[in-house]
Amino acid sequence: MRISDMSDNPHADFLVELAAAAARETLPRFRQTLDIEDKQLRGVFDPVTIADRSAEEAMRALINARYPEHGILGEEFGAERTDAEHVWVLDPVDGTRAFISGLPVWGTLAGLTRNGRAVLGLMAQPFTGELFCGDGARAWYTGPGGARVLKTRANGDLSSATLMTTTPALFKGAEAEAYGRVERAVRMPRYGADCYAYCMVASGHIDLVIETGLAPYDIVALIPIIEGAGGIVTNWEGEPAEAGGRVIAAGDRRLHAAALALLNS
Amino acid sequence: MRISDMSDNPHADFLVELAAAAARETLPRFRQTLDIEDKQLRGVFDPVTIADRSAEEAMRALINARYPEHGILGEEFGAERTDAEHVWVLDPVDGTRAFISGLPVWGTLAGLTRNGRAVLGLMAQPFTGELFCGDGARAWYTGPGGARVLKTRANGDLSSATLMTTTPALFKGAEAEAYGRVERAVRMPRYGADCYAYCMVASGHIDLVIETGLAPYDIVALIPIIEGAGGIVTNWEGEPAEAGGRVIAAGDRRLHAAALALLNS
Repeated sequence: MRISDMSDNPHADFLVELAAAAARETLPRFRQTLDIEDKQLRGVFDPVTIADRSAEEAMRALINARYPEHGILGEEFGAERTDAEHVWVLDPVDGTRAFISGLPVWGTLAGLTRNGRAVLGLMAQPFTGELFCGDGARAWYTGPGGARVLKTRANGDLSSATLMTTTPALFKGAEAEAYGRVERAVRMPRYGADCYAYCMVASGHIDLVIETGLAPYDIVALIPIIEGAGGIVTNWEGEPAEAGGRVIAAGDRRLHAAALALLNS
Repeated sequence: MRISDMSDNPHADFLVELAAAAARETLPRFRQTLDIEDKQLRGVFDPVTIADRSAEEAMRALINARYPEHGILGEEFGAERTDAEHVWVLDPVDGTRAFISGLPVWGTLAGLTRNGRAVLGLMAQPFTGELFCGDGARAWYTGPGGARVLKTRANGDLSSATLMTTTPALFKGAEAEAYGRVERAVRMPRYGADCYAYCMVASGHIDLVIETGLAPYDIVALIPIIEGAGGIVTNWEGEPAEAGGRVIAAGDRRLHAAALALLNS
């Protein structure tokens, strides 16, 4: 399966180039072991920081060479030309805590907005060799088991839903109460998966992700993947989620509505 | 690197056969998608239950053919000959919630006890193609990046430690208070990794795992891996952990002592 067979978006093939460029910088630095006590060494040589910065530099170089008129917003090096029609939104290592803990549930995120709306997105996990892509109309996957189209699962019922969030400790005060109402209503809450959780919604393995405090680069790439797989991503007010903040993603619109009602009740 | 080069234990090569037999049953059932709402279909066809039972049957058949005098204790099919000198302790899918959520942090566990003490262990993650093995004296790994010896990292300081547990919701009452004292003392707590967390201790990527309510088959296989990598596994009383229950695993004996003191303070 070639991406050009999957998507009408003229920039879709470029996602694979971005993923490959990032992987060359991140993968060799994943699971480098370093004694915690060697603080002097850590100061000048922190693998995840180097991975993050090098991967974003590599992706920016590719974008600037191929699409010099496009804008870029990245976690590490900020904004350039973000008033352009097309803006690439980059998080070279989403899930840095997973990365430094050796867990293969971090990912490289690259999304493309057009006039502010996310229209194309990629999550790449180079250790497992997985790519999750979407253009809002379709979503697709390549990995160890081959290529397939991504489709969320039908589940409108909170009491049978699996919910993921990075960690419940991120919710404070009224947000914690709102999140708690949803967590108590679902069958199974799970923590700790970062971007991988959204891709599991797109793949139909889980139903719901609820988070807070997201930056645009944490979510833009994931929106076209979930939407392309048949799901929905909004903020807690039910509005577009490209700006980040408080985000809810669901595989089924009925579940999204039910969870949103609980968040705001 | 061949296992027979790594370990003096005469049963060590057999670990790879067990892992391969289990993988044939688990991997094809991982990430099978099924609409949650199709309850009738789920009733007769629950992928993780079938994976669990089929993998344990496959491992039991291998053990009974090769070592008919050995005992077996498994999650799915209970105990046979557990008064034998050697007893195999099996959890075909440790981390069923990760399995059904599509996350590649579940694993197949196979451990061997001799006179009640864990002397050999395997954690296999077939989606990532990883094997973590140990015999109490040494520990080793094979995976996408090749083979290597496993070694825990030196870190005696809780304030710079990474701590993992399946979910803090498993601790109740006084146990929750005890766990909370340690969680507040560490730099980074993370949730949700099951057996994979222990292997990250053995690999030197994290420092500490604290859990409660474990069965013997949740922990026996992991003890020789962590001990072989230079770490320590006990219950919260500081005694051998083969019986499960409340378990603490650390990469550094000083950290183990510090965390144990907090748990019991």
